[in-house]
Order: sequence, then structure tokens, then C-alpha cells
Amino acid sequence: MESNVRAGVYGGSGYAGLDLVEILIGHPRIDLVFATSNTYAGDEAPGANLRYSTADSVSLEQVDVIFLALPHKASAAMAKRGIDKGVNVVDLSADLRLDTPEAYEQSYQSPHPHPELLPTPYGLPEINRENIAGADVVATPGCYPTTTLLGIYPLLQVNALCEETAIIVDAKSGVTGAGRKPSLATHFAEVYGNLIPYKTGRSHRHIGEMEQEAHKVSDRIGPIIFCPHLLPVDRGLMSSIYVTLNDTMESDQLHELYAEIYGSEALVDVLPAGEQATLRHAVKTNKCVISITPVLPRHAHITSVTDNLRKGAASQAVQNMNLMFGFDETMGLI
Amino acid sequence: MESNVRAGVYGGSGYAGLDLVEILIGHPRIDLVFATSNTYAGDEAPGANLRYSTADSVSLEQVDVIFLALPHKASAAMAKRGIDKGVNVVDLSADLRLDTPEAYEQSYQSPHPHPELLPTPYGLPEINRENIAGADVVATPGCYPTTTLLGIYPLLQVNALCEETAIIVDAKSGVTGAGRKPSLATHFAEVYGNLIPYKTGRSHRHIGEMEQEAHKVSDRIGPIIFCPHLLPVDRGLMSSIYVTLNDTMESDQLHELYAEIYGSEALVDVLPAGEQATLRHAVKTNKCVISITPVLPRHAHITSVTDNLRKGAASQAVQNMNLMFGFDETMGLI
Amino acid sequence: MESNVRAGVYGGSGYAGLDLVEILIGHPRIDLVFATSNTYAGDEAPGANLRYSTADSVSLEQVDVIFLALPHKASAAMAKRGIDKGVNVVDLSADLRLDTPEAYEQSYQSPHPHPELLPTPYGLPEINRENIAGADVVATPGCYPTTTLLGIYPLLQVNALCEETAIIVDAKSGVTGAGRKPSLATHFAEVYGNLIPYKTGRSHRHIGEMEQEAHKVSDRIGPIIFCPHLLPVDRGLMSSIYVTLNDTMESDQLHELYAEIYGSEALVDVLPAGEQATLRHAVKTNKCVISITPVLPRHAHITSVTDNLRKGAASQAVQNMNLMFGFDETMGLI
Amino acid sequence: MESNVRAGVYGGSGYAGLDLVEILIGHPRIDLVFATSNTYAGDEAPGANLRYSTADSVSLEQVDVIFLALPHKASAAMAKRGIDKGVNVVDLSADLRLDTPEAYEQSYQSPHPHPELLPTPYGLPEINRENIAGADVVATPGCYPTTTLLGIYPLLQVNALCEETAIIVDAKSGVTGAGRKPSLATHFAEVYGNLIPYKTGRSHRHIGEMEQEAHKVSDRIGPIIFCPHLLPVDRGLMSSIYVTLNDTMESDQLHELYAEIYGSEALVDVLPAGEQATLRHAVKTNKCVISITPVLPRHAHITSVTDNLRKGAASQAVQNMNLMFGFDETMGLI
Repeated sequence: MESNVRAGVYGGSGYAGLDLVEILIGHPRIDLVFATSNTYAGDEAPGANLRYSTADSVSLEQVDVIFLALPHKASAAMAKRGIDKGVNVVDLSADLRLDTPEAYEQSYQSPHPHPELLPTPYGLPEINRENIAGADVVATPGCYPTTTLLGIYPLLQVNALCEETAIIVDAKSGVTGAGRKPSLATHFAEVYGNLIPYKTGRSHRHIGEMEQEAHKVSDRIGPIIFCPHLLPVDRGLMSSIYVTLNDTMESDQLHELYAEIYGSEALVDVLPAGEQATLRHAVKTNKCVISITPVLPRHAHITSVTDNLRKGAASQAVQNMNLMFGFDETMGLI
Repeated sequence: MESNVRAGVYGGSGYAGLDLVEILIGHPRIDLVFATSNTYAGDEAPGANLRYSTADSVSLEQVDVIFLALPHKASAAMAKRGIDKGVNVVDLSADLRLDTPEAYEQSYQSPHPHPELLPTPYGLPEINRENIAGADVVATPGCYPTTTLLGIYPLLQVNALCEETAIIVDAKSGVTGAGRKPSLATHFAEVYGNLIPYKTGRSHRHIGEMEQEAHKVSDRIGPIIFCPHLLPVDRGLMSSIYVTLNDTMESDQLHELYAEIYGSEALVDVLPAGEQATLRHAVKTNKCVISITPVLPRHAHITSVTDNLRKGAASQAVQNMNLMFGFDETMGLI
Repeated sequence: MESNVRAGVYGGSGYAGLDLVEILIGHPRIDLVFATSNTYAGDEAPGANLRYSTADSVSLEQVDVIFLALPHKASAAMAKRGIDKGVNVVDLSADLRLDTPEAYEQSYQSPHPHPELLPTPYGLPEINRENIAGADVVATPGCYPTTTLLGIYPLLQVNALCEETAIIVDAKSGVTGAGRKPSLATHFAEVYGNLIPYKTGRSHRHIGEMEQEAHKVSDRIGPIIFCPHLLPVDRGLMSSIYVTLNDTMESDQLHELYAEIYGSEALVDVLPAGEQATLRHAVKTNKCVISITPVLPRHAHITSVTDNLRKGAASQAVQNMNLMFGFDETMGLI
Repeated sequence: MESNVRAGVYGGSGYAGLDLVEILIGHPRIDLVFATSNTYAGDEAPGANLRYSTADSVSLEQVDVIFLALPHKASAAMAKRGIDKGVNVVDLSADLRLDTPEAYEQSYQSPHPHPELLPTPYGLPEINRENIAGADVVATPGCYPTTTLLGIYPLLQVNALCEETAIIVDAKSGVTGAGRKPSLATHFAEVYGNLIPYKTGRSHRHIGEMEQEAHKVSDRIGPIIFCPHLLPVDRGLMSSIYVTLNDTMESDQLHELYAEIYGSEALVDVLPAGEQATLRHAVKTNKCVISITPVLPRHAHITSVTDNLRKGAASQAVQNMNLMFGFDETMGLI
């Protein structure tokens, strides 16, 4: 019997980190060696038989793989250290998602701290599985790009979109998506009973990776008009996607297309025609759930939902790790 | 000193009816004579010094104007009776909103009960003020059409939209929009923590009136792709509107256009450029609040919010009544 | 290898039924043969590879044990049928919880439909384990009695309560506790932002079983003053219990008492002194979580929380079934 | 016609400050001259035609009365300055509520910054009206003491409580009660779906003022056992009070007692017997709403609700100001 893979989590007390610890604890081939949290060092990590350590008090020698749920920049630095020590790295931050330092600088308004790490395989297994399997470092996508890209991927693959028309993505996320650090924007009394558009007008940093990855599949598409909203719930993310087709397909053929392309995917559910994906389809699951609604012959409405902390972060990180180590891709996830 | 207008509310215990009673009680020129509720007859109408009556126990002789917050079909019949008696009618149902019996039948799948009442002036004062003033009967628009039409009206007026491209309306409404009658769809435990698309694919009955009224202002527009969502809050409605412009304007000119067209409107607020309309801007107010975000030179994102029970129903009904009786349009509303 | 126990669920589409199906599907020694739902017959039971059947279309011959999540009265009738056929019965209704037909009639204002079934072992394993093990039929307690009785049981066992003083239980439950049948009381817009006391003044039917079981442990106690509140969340139940001690103990000794009595219980967690039980400690778990706060030497405040659908219903039913069939008591539950 | 009273608000951007500004703007005899906010200086105060000033940029010469919605200690210092300048002071902080420096030090663990200001009239008009009328400075009570004291005041007045038994107060407050400063405890995702007891075991600072004022009315009472809970709503406060009577009264006589004592109070509503006060009875109103439930002959359950930001803070401050200036007590409040 093979010995387990020893894992460490950096940033284990943020919302993604908490879910990551929970999933890794239940993973049959992982021994969770440490979870760091400078804020909560010494406290018990909920659900794990483990206390948080400071980042300084743990060593890369103890582990085979590290998960980085750190602020951006801190993450790249740690990734670099891990790679140099021969430890596998699953990064959940934005640091390694963009292929070039220039793209990074454009989205994040500062030079990339470790341009030598780019490009890193983009960790969206349903689209990029072959580059993840066996990689030493993987960049787990953001929650919005995951949900949105899975929602349009079949259309990109068959080049069915009208090039002259924008892809409209009206997205809504639960508040855990904004992180655990207190702020007025996440104060209960500010969010309760409210619905708040934010980072409007293509200002959200996730647009860069969405377009980068979409264009790798098809360059015959219009711009992505993306607007996120803060939803008064704790978890769950919905991308409501409105697309215009070119003349190669009509909207009533889309369901079959999606059903075929995702037919063998364990972590993407395409709902039966006529059924609508709701937030709750995905909350506390590790799946992306998609419904397709033909609106007019050339217009379709696609609803794609995930749990922003699971398929949008922690469980997708574990899915990537499974591929990196040659485990069954869904091990510990279904 | 002129005597007050005597008003009656039919359907005073539904959510729109409750707000209507509250507004009328505070209106300086109205005496609220009765509010009917077959379910709650005998109970006190909250906030009013008045008990609900059954519809049978009140008489049109007692009043100068009736507000109808009744189920559709029941509303048309009552409107007919009111008109025949010379009583002014402000209808809040869908019965009188469509101009022709054919259009009604198409949206509501059954013949119009009183085709002789059509067309009735469409009660969206900011667009149709001159036809409402002095009318005997007015059809108060639905909450989605109100919010959406006000969100695009300036663009229609100057014919700034690209004819070949759809107008995308991703809308979200609080649960009171679904009415007060209990159902599994409005059960707390089904809605809580959820976000639910419904009546997708142009199946929502409000699309008919939206397109009818939009086309009266401009017929050079693409189709309206409208999808509503049930939001886990009690009140408030947001229409997130994504438009493509033709070559007569660029998106950074829109704010000025909106500011000009709505500059003199007391019940429409255009937020300063760069500020986003949130649900809470409108909840418990009688206003429609709009923000405009240029996304790309030819693409703009407009957020239009109302309280679905106020500007989306009850307060707009009172605004119409004010116009019908020659009162100041915002009397009792600001 | 022994063959699995074949189970059927009657009433599988109510909230407790849904959790029951989910737990049984994951239980290693159970084969779930059917789940009935007259309302949803033909639909898929969520999470189970199974469609709901009507109650008429299934047979007791197919199963070894039935779980009854039926309305009261219907449940007793079905229990009777099961017992007569030699099928084990885990009842989740109130029908079999009271020991005598007289007590039932007092709480439920009508004669007991099957007095020959009384008394049935009361299925609160931490207090009554020996009578449940090996029984053919068990009455699973209500959510309020479970949470409250576990909160005071150690005090009862050592006779530490002041006989002249009432035990005050201010309880709060999520809306699933009110069942899935739509009603105005559970309409989202009525519950949202609200907190509603109900069944005040000892009128709640669960008081009978609370006092019955409390008195079996100690008859030297004052009355239980119990008031439930409807909390605007979907799940979770908190009993806030205020007790006055007699002179055998002081409040700072209680933590040790509770820790000792519950030390070996896998499904009751006593929090460390100084830590407070919150609703979230129990939601979506199968445990009862308890905190004890000394207030004055003779006064203590105990917070006891459960998930009303789990330890307050479905998981406790499975815990009982485990005992009845000689399985490990927590099989399928941790 | 008399000129208006010129008012200034210190701390106008906290939750109580926001409501205070809103109420003062609508008050017929007040001119709101300034509202300070060091955090939001320069921003518009919502709903007021006024921008926030820094505290340094305004002068006491500009006003006749100041409202202090400041952190404790800062409030006492400002009160002192106001009094020295001959400006009336309505303090909303805790600084002036306790009668002696010793009591303050016991509750707040540090010496009182201005002991010469003590005692200050306690601003609960229904109990202490005569000392507020004409005072130059008033200490507006905390939200919990207001709600709780009004809930038991009639019992205190007639000495109906059993001296040997504790008064149990299980209280629940919306999140605005915790202030607007961001913290993990008020992060949306921590509060959502949760119910959190806090400051348990008589550690809440409001207990001092509750007992001080209760004892002024009756010293023949037991201790107050008070435990607050954080409720997942934005506004509203419920005190659930469980009392034991002595032999002078039975619980079914209480309703009449309350109805009589509060019969002439415009801002306290005693609900008809059999009706329960819910949170929503008070939210966004300036009233305290009370229901009384006899449980056993000597046991009663009283539910007292307020809006923690209104009768629990801002509107009570204005009620006090009305008394201080000889206005009608409810001016601007109903």
C-alpha cells in the first residue's frame, strides 16, 4: 500500500482555506500536516484534529504538496519557495493565472513578483486536464472565471458564437467571495436586504483570465461584458450568461451540445432541458451545474452555478491536486 | 377649501394593497373610505384606522376613485363596473395594460374579459404623463416593465440603440413580487440562501407590455431578452440592462443624456457617474434609481432599481391618481 | 458478510423526510428500497437514485424497517400496520411519544388512534438507550424536547434543581421546523427580518413529552416554562435554558458535571467552559452542542443547539434504528 | 412664530447617527445645522441636504442642542464642553447613564472621565419624564435597558414580583446594535444563518443601568438574569422576559395592569390579550410594543420589542429633546 501524500495549507483560516482543510481531512490519500494562519495560530482548525500554525513555524520539508490560499503577491513568493524545494504547488490566488507578466501587470497594476513562474498551467480540469496532469504547479482559477468559462465552453469549442456580439455575463456571488477580512462592504447590516453591483464596467480583475482562457478555445468571439453583484447569502455563485449564436447552430440545439460535451464530466451537471439551475443546486457541492434556455433562435440564456468556495476554489484545487498526483480526479470530492 | 377625494381599495391585504393603504392614509387630499379583503374581512388594516370589508359589503357610491389590486380578470370586471358608475379607476392588475385583446390573449392565454376597455392609458407617468392626466381609468404597469422601461427610455427616445442586437435584461425581484398567497415557491425554507431564475426564455407575461411600450417610443430596437430571478429578500427589484449602441452615440455620453431627460423628474434619480445603484437605494422609497456604466464605447450597463411594491405598484398607482385628479404629481409620495 | 437492512421511508418529501433519505442513502448497512410522497410521486428524491412512490404502490414485504415522517394520526395507523407485519418501525411523528392515551388526548385534543401501541420506547438514546436497543418500535422525540431534555438531563440526574422555581426555556427554531406545507406563517416575506414567538403560554404540544421524560429522571423539579420562536433561518434550533439550583451544587460546578455525563457521548458535545454554543455549531451536523454559563452561584444559563432536522428528527431516527438493529449507534452519522 | 431650535449631531454616520439625522431632518421645530463624521467628512449624509463635517470644523456657537452618538469617553468629554457653553446635550452613549462614578467604573472598568456630570437624568420618558423635562443634559438609555425596563415597569410599580426569584431576560438584537465599525463578529458570512449568544453570565454592560433604574422603582425584586443574542437581521430588538409573581397578583391580571399604566403613552403599545409582539411590530417605528402572556397563575411571559436604533436610541433621544425644550413629546416621531 502506497503511503499518503503529505499536504500543507497556507492561509487555512480564510473562507477558501476553511473549506480546503475540511476537504483534505476527508481525502483518503492525503495526510494534512499543517494549516497556517497568522491570525488564528494556536486555535483549532474547525473540523480538523489540528491547530493552526504560523507560516514561520512550519517547514516545506514536512510536505509533498502545498495549497496556497494567500493574498496575491504573498502567494507567488511562497509558490516560488515551494517549487525551489521540489514541493508541488496548488495556488488558489490570482498570481499564476495569467500567462504573461504584462497581462498580470495590466490586471493588477503592479509588476509580477516572479515572472519566471509564468505561464503556469490553468487549473480548470474540464478544459485543461492534460496540462494539469503531472504538473508541479497549477494555478486554480477564480470563482467567476470557473463558473463563466464552464458555462460557455461548449459554445467556444464548436465556434457557435456570433463574433460581432458581446457575451453578457451578469454574475452574482455570496459574501464569502469577498474574503473573511472585515470591511464595511461585508458588514452584515450593509449587505442584508441589499443587492450590490460592484467592479462594473470591465473593471473586475477576473476578466483578464476569462478572456485569456476563452480565446485559447476560440478566438472568434466578441468581448465579454461581465458585471458581478454581491448577493445577500453566504455562499454560491451564479453566472447568468446571455449569448448570441452565429448561423451554425440554433438555440434549441444547445442542450444536446452541452449534454454531449459534459456527458462524461463527474463535476459538471447539465440539467434536463426545461429545468433551471438555481444557486442551491451548487451550494455545498463540488460541482458546476448548468441549465440552457433557448430564448430566440439565435439567442440563448445559460445559467451556470457553483459554490464559490468549492468548485470556485477549494474543491477545484483538490481536483487539480488529484490530477497532479495521478489520483482519481474526483477522489475526496464525491 | 375643496373637499377630499374619497377612495376605495379593492384587494387591500395583498402586499401591493398593504402599501397602497399605507400611502393613501398619509395622502393629504384622500379620504380612504374602504379597503376590501375577502380573506381578512373584519381585521384591522395595518396602520390604518380601518377594518377590511368584504367586496360585497361596500358600494361604489361611497367613493370617487377605486384602486384595484385584484387578481387579473377580477380586476377588469371591477374596472368595468367602476367606469359604468362614473367612478375613476386605477388598475394595478395586468388586465388593462395591453392595447389590444389579441395582445392580451397572447400573453395571458385566454380571451380578454372586457375588450371594450382597451386601450387604456398606460400609467407610467414619466413616459406617458399627458395621456394619464385627466383620464378616467389608468393601467398601472407591472414592476418589471416600470423598472426596465425607465432604465432604457432615454436611449429609446434618441434612437441610440443598435437595431441588430438584443437588449439584455437580467432582473431580480424580492419575494413580495410573487404575491402573498402561500406556495412552495415562496416558502421561506425554499427561498432562503437561494437565487432562482424563473419564467425564463421570454415566457414572463410582462414582456408583452415592455415591448409594446418600448416600441411606442422607438421601433428601431432589437428584441428584449428578459429573465427574472427570485431574490432572497422581501422587497426591491433590480433590472440589470446591457445595451449595445448604434453609431450615433458612445457610452460615455449616456450619463449626460439620462441626466437631462430625467433632470426634472422627482421620482427618478440618476446617480452621479461612477456611483452604482443598489437595491437599497430604492427599497421603501417611491423612486426609481438609475446608474449608468459605460463598458466599451458601444456597450453600456444600466442598473435600474425600484421598490416593487412602490414605484413598481402602489406608489405609481397613487402618482397616476394624482395626475388624474389634477393634484401635484408627487403629492403624498415625497 | 451479512446482508443489508432494507428500509422504506414514508413521507420522504417533507423536510425531515428529505434529510432522512439523504442519511439513509449514505448508511453502510441500509438499502433504501422506497421513499413515499403522495405530492411528489414520480419525481426523483434529491440525492438518491430513487423516485418517490405513492404510499399505495409500495409494500411492507419489501422492507425490514420503516421510517414514518407522516402527519400525526396517519403515522400511528402506519406504525400499527408495520408492527402487525413484523416490520420494525421508527416513528418520527408525535403519535407514540406520550405514554398514555390520556396524555395524548390532553396534548392533541382527540383520542389516540391506536392506544394499544402505548407506551412506546422514547427514542432519545442518550437518556433511554437501554429501552431502545432491541425494540421493534421507537418514538423519535420532537426537536424541542430533544434539545431541551439534553440541555437539562445532567441536572435532573443529580437532582440539582430548585423545586420551587420554574425551568425557563426560551427556544428558537428555523423555519423548516414548521414543515414544508405552504402557509402564510412560513411565507418568505412574513418571516424575513422578523422574529415571532408562537404557541406561547405552555400551549405548545411538545411540552407534554418534555415534562413526561424529565419527570422520569427526576420528579423534584419545578414546571417547565417553554416558549418557542420562529427564527428567520432555514435550519437550526436553540434552547436557551435558565435554571435555578438547589443547595447541592453551585453553578460553577455544572461544567464538570456535564462534561462527565456526556463525556462518552459521540453525538453530544459539551463546549469548553467560557465558549458559547451558537446555532451554527449544530446546523447540518448530527449532534447536540451544549454550553454552560454560570450566572450567579445558584443561577445558570445553558444553551443547547441541534439541527432540528437532524438530531431533532432524521439523524436521531437513524441513531434509534442503529440501536434497534444492533449496529454501531453512530453508524452513518459521523 | 418662534424660531427653530438649532441642532448638531456628533457621530452622524454610525447607525444610530444615521437614524438621528433622518428623524431630525423631518422634525418641524429643528434646524439641523451639522452632523459630524470623521470617517465620512465631505460625503453627503443620506437623506439630508447636508454634508458630514469633521468634529473640529464645527462650533458649539452654531447650535442650541447637540446629540452625541459618540464612543463612550469621547461622549462625556463633548457633553462637558457643551454644558460649559450653555448648549443642551442629549447623550446617546453610556457615559452618563450610571448615577455614580463607582457604578461606571464597575461596568466600564475605568474611571469616569467627568464624574462632575453625574448623576444625569436617565432619559426613559415613560418612567422618568418629570426629571427630563427642562433638563440641560439627558442620558439616553441603551437599547436593551429601554426594551427591558419598559417590559417590566408596570410590575415594578405595583411591587408584583417575587423577590426570591430572578427576572429572566432572554434578549435578541439585530446586527446594527453592534455598531457600524467592521469586525469579524459583524461580517455577513459569520452572522448569516446563525444565532449567537454573547456577553453571557451578567457580563453585558447594560445590566448595571437596568438594575439601577429598576431598583429606583422597586427594591423588592430578584436579580436580573440577562442574556443577549445576535440575531441575523439588521434591525429590531426583542426582550423575552419571564417573571414570577408574588401573591399580590395573578398572571391573568397583568394585561389590565399594563393597559392601564401605558394607556396614555403614545410610544408604548400594549397588544390585545392573546396577540404576540413580533420583531416586525417595532422595526422602523418609534415605539415599544409589548405583549403579555399568562403562563401559570404565578408565571408570566412578556415580550417587549423596539427598533434598537429608534426607541432604543435615536427616536428616544429626540423624545428626550422634545421634553427638554417643552415641545410636544412625540413631535417628529409619529
